[in-house]
Amino acid sequence: MSESARVDLRSDTLSLLTPQMRKAMADAEVGDDVWGGDPTTRRLERHCAELFGKEAALFTTSGTLSNQLALRVHTSPGDEVITDTKYHVNYYESAASAGLAGVALNTVDSADGVLTPELLEFALRRKARKRLYAAPKLVFVENTVNFHSGRVVSHDSLRALRRHTLDAALATHLDGARLANASVAAGVSLAEFADTADTVSMCFAKGLAAPFGSILVGSADLIEKATAYRSAYGGGLHQSGVMAAAALYALRHNVERLAEDHHHAQLLGELLSHHPAFGVEPDTVQTNILVVDVSGTGLPAGAFVRAAAAEGVLLAERTATSFRAMTRLGIDETAIHTAAQRLLALADRVQGTAVA
Amino acid sequence: MSESARVDLRSDTLSLLTPQMRKAMADAEVGDDVWGGDPTTRRLERHCAELFGKEAALFTTSGTLSNQLALRVHTSPGDEVITDTKYHVNYYESAASAGLAGVALNTVDSADGVLTPELLEFALRRKARKRLYAAPKLVFVENTVNFHSGRVVSHDSLRALRRHTLDAALATHLDGARLANASVAAGVSLAEFADTADTVSMCFAKGLAAPFGSILVGSADLIEKATAYRSAYGGGLHQSGVMAAAALYALRHNVERLAEDHHHAQLLGELLSHHPAFGVEPDTVQTNILVVDVSGTGLPAGAFVRAAAAEGVLLAERTATSFRAMTRLGIDETAIHTAAQRLLALADRVQGTAVA
Amino acid sequence: MSESARVDLRSDTLSLLTPQMRKAMADAEVGDDVWGGDPTTRRLERHCAELFGKEAALFTTSGTLSNQLALRVHTSPGDEVITDTKYHVNYYESAASAGLAGVALNTVDSADGVLTPELLEFALRRKARKRLYAAPKLVFVENTVNFHSGRVVSHDSLRALRRHTLDAALATHLDGARLANASVAAGVSLAEFADTADTVSMCFAKGLAAPFGSILVGSADLIEKATAYRSAYGGGLHQSGVMAAAALYALRHNVERLAEDHHHAQLLGELLSHHPAFGVEPDTVQTNILVVDVSGTGLPAGAFVRAAAAEGVLLAERTATSFRAMTRLGIDETAIHTAAQRLLALADRVQGTAVA
Amino acid sequence: MSESARVDLRSDTLSLLTPQMRKAMADAEVGDDVWGGDPTTRRLERHCAELFGKEAALFTTSGTLSNQLALRVHTSPGDEVITDTKYHVNYYESAASAGLAGVALNTVDSADGVLTPELLEFALRRKARKRLYAAPKLVFVENTVNFHSGRVVSHDSLRALRRHTLDAALATHLDGARLANASVAAGVSLAEFADTADTVSMCFAKGLAAPFGSILVGSADLIEKATAYRSAYGGGLHQSGVMAAAALYALRHNVERLAEDHHHAQLLGELLSHHPAFGVEPDTVQTNILVVDVSGTGLPAGAFVRAAAAEGVLLAERTATSFRAMTRLGIDETAIHTAAQRLLALADRVQGTAVA
Repeated sequence: MSESARVDLRSDTLSLLTPQMRKAMADAEVGDDVWGGDPTTRRLERHCAELFGKEAALFTTSGTLSNQLALRVHTSPGDEVITDTKYHVNYYESAASAGLAGVALNTVDSADGVLTPELLEFALRRKARKRLYAAPKLVFVENTVNFHSGRVVSHDSLRALRRHTLDAALATHLDGARLANASVAAGVSLAEFADTADTVSMCFAKGLAAPFGSILVGSADLIEKATAYRSAYGGGLHQSGVMAAAALYALRHNVERLAEDHHHAQLLGELLSHHPAFGVEPDTVQTNILVVDVSGTGLPAGAFVRAAAAEGVLLAERTATSFRAMTRLGIDETAIHTAAQRLLALADRVQGTAVA
Repeated sequence: MSESARVDLRSDTLSLLTPQMRKAMADAEVGDDVWGGDPTTRRLERHCAELFGKEAALFTTSGTLSNQLALRVHTSPGDEVITDTKYHVNYYESAASAGLAGVALNTVDSADGVLTPELLEFALRRKARKRLYAAPKLVFVENTVNFHSGRVVSHDSLRALRRHTLDAALATHLDGARLANASVAAGVSLAEFADTADTVSMCFAKGLAAPFGSILVGSADLIEKATAYRSAYGGGLHQSGVMAAAALYALRHNVERLAEDHHHAQLLGELLSHHPAFGVEPDTVQTNILVVDVSGTGLPAGAFVRAAAAEGVLLAERTATSFRAMTRLGIDETAIHTAAQRLLALADRVQGTAVA
Repeated sequence: MSESARVDLRSDTLSLLTPQMRKAMADAEVGDDVWGGDPTTRRLERHCAELFGKEAALFTTSGTLSNQLALRVHTSPGDEVITDTKYHVNYYESAASAGLAGVALNTVDSADGVLTPELLEFALRRKARKRLYAAPKLVFVENTVNFHSGRVVSHDSLRALRRHTLDAALATHLDGARLANASVAAGVSLAEFADTADTVSMCFAKGLAAPFGSILVGSADLIEKATAYRSAYGGGLHQSGVMAAAALYALRHNVERLAEDHHHAQLLGELLSHHPAFGVEPDTVQTNILVVDVSGTGLPAGAFVRAAAAEGVLLAERTATSFRAMTRLGIDETAIHTAAQRLLALADRVQGTAVA
Repeated sequence: MSESARVDLRSDTLSLLTPQMRKAMADAEVGDDVWGGDPTTRRLERHCAELFGKEAALFTTSGTLSNQLALRVHTSPGDEVITDTKYHVNYYESAASAGLAGVALNTVDSADGVLTPELLEFALRRKARKRLYAAPKLVFVENTVNFHSGRVVSHDSLRALRRHTLDAALATHLDGARLANASVAAGVSLAEFADTADTVSMCFAKGLAAPFGSILVGSADLIEKATAYRSAYGGGLHQSGVMAAAALYALRHNVERLAEDHHHAQLLGELLSHHPAFGVEPDTVQTNILVVDVSGTGLPAGAFVRAAAAEGVLLAERTATSFRAMTRLGIDETAIHTAAQRLLALADRVQGTAVA
C-alpha cells in the first residue's frame, strides 16, 4: 500500500506543516531571546496573555515543560499536588513530577476524568497532614481529558471546583494541552476557561498543527519565576521567533477549523457504530478523540491495531480492549470514509474468523 | 482527675521505660559507631540479621528513616514505587518520598490494606511506562496494617505477592513497624515473614517499648548502601550502644508479651460491643489496635475523643466517625476494664442527650 | 544612530538567520519525533554520530539541556562532578546541577581554564570520600573556554587528562559548545577531540548560526538514557525536523567560515592594542572571543560598555575592568574596522576627560 | 599492649560515658516527643534557646542533621550557599547538600578557615547571577574550624561578616559543632557568638561527651520549619528524654572543663615541638586540636599514623604529610605525657632508619 493511501489516526501531533505555515516561519522576524529578546516571541507571548486574560505568558518547547514549570512555580519539593490518575501529569509525567519537581501526586480515580469538589475532599482526607511539609498546594486539572475520549470539562464544573480550591487556599493549574478544542466545542472562550485557574498551559503542536511548542500563562510574578526555571531545564531558546511565528499562524488560522476535526471524529464514530463488533457511543465524542471498544471482534486491542495498520489505518492502542483514533489537520471527510470502510471490513473478516 | 488515673490508649509508642530497660541502657558497653564501631550496636545488628534471616542489619533512629533508606537503596529519583494509599509510607511519608527520595508513589486503595497481585497489576496498567525513566522498581507492603485495625497480612498472601513481584523483576520492601505483633499473632516467625521481601524494617519503640529506634535488614550490599545514605540523612550516631541496649532488651523480654496486648485489645472490643452506640466487630481485632465506630453515639469522632479525654480515657481520632485505641506495655487488664466502664458510661450519657 | 550602523559584538548567539538557512528550514522533510521519528532529525543525529566518531547522538534544544542530560546519565544525586569554577556548568548552571541533577560540583580555580591532572588531583584530595555516596564520578571539561577568551584546550592536554581520568575510573564529559571553533583553530577534527571524552555536546546556535539547538553524542546506551531524561525535562519535540534542517545546513556551510570570525577577533585585538588605554594581548586571541582590559581608560568596564553602546558598538561586560567582544556570521571586516575606530575614539575622549 | 595502655587521640567524639552521665540518663523523665512532648527534651530545648539567646531550639540526632535542616529552612533547591571548601558542610556533607537539599555550594579556599567579607565578595563575583534561581541565600560559617587546627574564628571577625551579609540580604548559619570550645577559649559567650547568625548548631557528642545529639537554635519560625523537615529526614524520636538528659548533664558539667582539653592539646604540641622531625607551632593550638607535620620523619602521614598505632598512640591522618590529635574527657595529663614519649621515640627511630 502506498504511503499516501494510509490514514494515520494515531495522534493529532502528527499533522505536518502546511506550505503557509512554512512560509510564516521562513519570513519570521527574529532576535536572540537571551540577549534583549526575540520580537516574534514577544508578540506571541503578549498575544497569548491577552487571549487568556492573564498578565503574562511564556513560550516553552513542550506541554510537558509548561506543566513541569507550573509545578515549580506553585510548589516546593515535598508539597502535594492533587490530580487524577489518568491525567497527563501522572500518566506520563510522574517521574518528572517526583524526580525533578519533588512533589507528591495525590491522585484520584475519577469515573470520567472530571475532578469534582467531592473527589478533592476525598483526596485531602485520605492523607495525614503536616502543616509545614507535605502540604497540599496545587490542584492540577486537565481539559480536554485525553484519556477520557477528549471529554470537555464544563466551565460550570471548573468554576465550582475553583470556588472550592480558593476556599482551601489551593492554587489551580489547568493543563489545557487541547483547551482550544474544548473552547471550540463548548463555545467558551479561552479567557473564560483560564479564569478558573492561576496558570494555564496550551499546546501548539496538537490540533493547532504547529511543529512544536506550548504556552504557559499566569500572573507576571509566576511567569517571571517560570522563566528562571525554564532556563535551568534547558528550555531557553535563542532565535525562537521561527517557532513563535508558527504558533502565531496556528492561533490565527487553525483554531476555528478544530470544529471540522470534531465533526470528523463524530462521523467516524457513527460509521463504526453500525457494526455490532464495535462498542461506540457517538454522542460521547465531544472533540477530536474517538475511543472504540473492540471486544466484539474477538481480538485484543493490540492485535486489532496491528491488523488495522496492515489495512492502512493507523490507530493507537488505548487499553487491552479499546483503540483510540484522533482527527486533525490533513484528515478530511474522504479519509474518514476510507478509514471507516477498511475498519468495518476488517471487523467483518476478523469476526467471521473468530466465529468460524 | 489525677494523672495516674488516666488510661492512655492513643498509641503504643507511649509506653514508658521500665526500670529494667533503664538499667540495661545505663550498663551498656559503648564505643563510637563512626570510629571503628559501637560494640552493643554491632551485637544488635548481628542479632537482628539472624532473627530475620538476612545477611545484614542497620540500626536507625526511626521507622521513617528505615523506610526512606529502603526507598534509596531500591530506587533512583524518577522511579516508581507501588503501595497502598493508607500505608505509612504514603499516609505520613509522601513528602519525604517525593521531596527527598524523588520517587513517584503509585498508590492503590485496597479494601482491607492487603496489596494483592491483582491490585499490583491494576497499578502497573494504569500508568504509561517508559523503560528507562518512571520505571516501577519496588513494591512496598506493610504488616501489620496500622490503618486497617492492625490487621495481619498473612504469610500466604505475602508469598503469593512475592512470586508475582519476582516475576515482574520488582524488589519488595516490608514495612514491619509492628511485624513483631504480626509474628506473635499469626505464629509465623520474623524470618518467615522476612523471606517474602528483600528488605524489612521493624520498630523498637512501638509494642516493644524501647525509647526509639528501628532496624533495617537485607543483603550485605543493600545495607552497605543504606549505611552511606543514613549518614547523609543525619542518622549516624556516635555512642549508639545506649539505645541499642534498649532494643536488645526489648527483643529479649517484650516480644512474647505482645500476646497480652492483643488480648487486651480484644477484651476492650468485646466490652464495648455490648453497647448499641458502638460499632465494634471484636473478631477483626487481630493485634493491639481496636477501631470503634461511634456514629451511634450521635457525636462526631473528634467530639467523642475530646469527651472521652475529659473522662480520663485518651483515644486517637481515626476518621470522622471512628476512634482508635491501642494497647501496650503499661496497660493491664484493670486499665482495660476502667476504660471500658468510662466509655460505656459516656456512650449512655451522650446518647441520652442526643435522644433528648 | 540607525540600527544598521550598530556593530553588535555581544555574543555569537546573535547571528541572525540567512535566507539560505531559512530556505533549508522551510523545505525540511518532517515527521513526529514522538511517533516513529522525524526523518531530518534522524539524519542530523546519524550525521553527528559519525562526525564525532560516537555510536549515537541526540538533538536537544540547548547547550544547557545537553550538559544537564550528560550529568544525569553519568551520575546519581549525591555524586560529585569535578570541573572549573569558570566553566558554563558552574558559572551559569550551578542551580540546575544542584537542584535538578542533585550533584555536587567540586570546582577548581584554574589560571587559564585548563583542567590539568594536577588540578584534578587537588580537587580529589580536598574532600572527604565516602565510597558509596558523594563519590566523584565525572570530570566536566569545556573547549573552547568562553571565560578565558575562547582559549582552545589542546588535544594533547585533553588526552593527558583522559589517561588520568580513565585510571581513576571517572567518566568525562566535554562541553564543546564552541568545539567547532576549537577544531578549526587547532586543525584537530571533532572526532579527535571527542575521542578524549565519553560524551560531548556542541551548540548549533553560536558560531554555527542556527536559530537554536545542540547535539549530545556518546555511546548508544548513554544516549538512550539521555533520551528518556530529555522527555522528563520537557525537551521532546514533535516536528523537530525544521530545526534539525537548520543544524544540518550549519554543519555543511558554517564550520569552515569560523576561521574568518577568528581572523576578525584577532584583527580587532590588533587594532585596539595600539591604544595605551586598552590592555590587549592579540596573540591570546585563539578563536572568536576577544577580552580587553579597559583599566587604562579610567572607566569601570560597565561604564565603558554603556559608553560604547552610545557610540554604536555593543559589547559585553566581562569583569569589573574588562569587556568581551565576540565575532560571528554577519560581522565582516568593515564592521571590525568601524568598531575599532569608534572604540579608539572613545578611549581618546574618555582618557582625555579622565586626565583633564 | 593492653587496651588500657592505648592513648586514643583520634577524635573527641570518642569520649565514653561517665557513670554520672549514665545515671542522669537512667533517671530521665520521659514522654513521647511525637504525642504531646517529652518533658526532658522540652527542658533541654528551652535551656538551649536561652543559652544562645534565640527564640527556639530543636534537639536533633547529629550535627549533620542540624546543618542539613539549616540548609532546608534557609534555602530552596537551586539556591546557592557560600562557604569554605574545608568546612564540614562541604568536606563531609557535599552529597547531602546537593542530593537532598539541592543547594549549590559556592566554596572558597581560605588560607586559615576564616570566611572574610573579601572572600564572600570574591565568591559572589565569580558566578553568573539569576535573580530568581541560583540566587545566593545563605552564608555558612564554622567555629571552631576543625580542619584548621580547631582555630577560633573571633567574635569581631564574625560580626564584621554579619554586617556584610545583612547588607547583602544573606542569611547566616553558624556550624558550631565545637562552639563550646570556642566560647571557653575566647571568653565569648554562646549567646554572643549566636548573635552573629540566624541559626546555630552545636554538638553534644564532641567535647561535651554526651553519647550523641545536637541542638539547632534560631527564630521560632525557622525552628518550626526545621521540626517538620526533621520528621521527613527520619529524625523524629519518641522517648528522646534519655538522650536529652545526657545533653543537659553535659551542658552543666562538661563545658568549663574544655579548658583542660585545650591545655592538654597545647602541652602535647610543646612536648612534640622539641623534636626537629615534627612541625608544630604550639601557639596555633587554640582549642583541643593539634595538627603536626611529619615530613621531617621521612614517612608519609599514613605510614606514621600506622606506626604510632603500633606504639599505642591512635592518631588521625590529616593530609599526606600531617596527623591530627584531639584531646577530650578521658585524656589526662599523664596520657599526654605517655603519648608524647611514644611519639618522640618513634620519631627518633624512624628518622634514624630513614637517614641510615
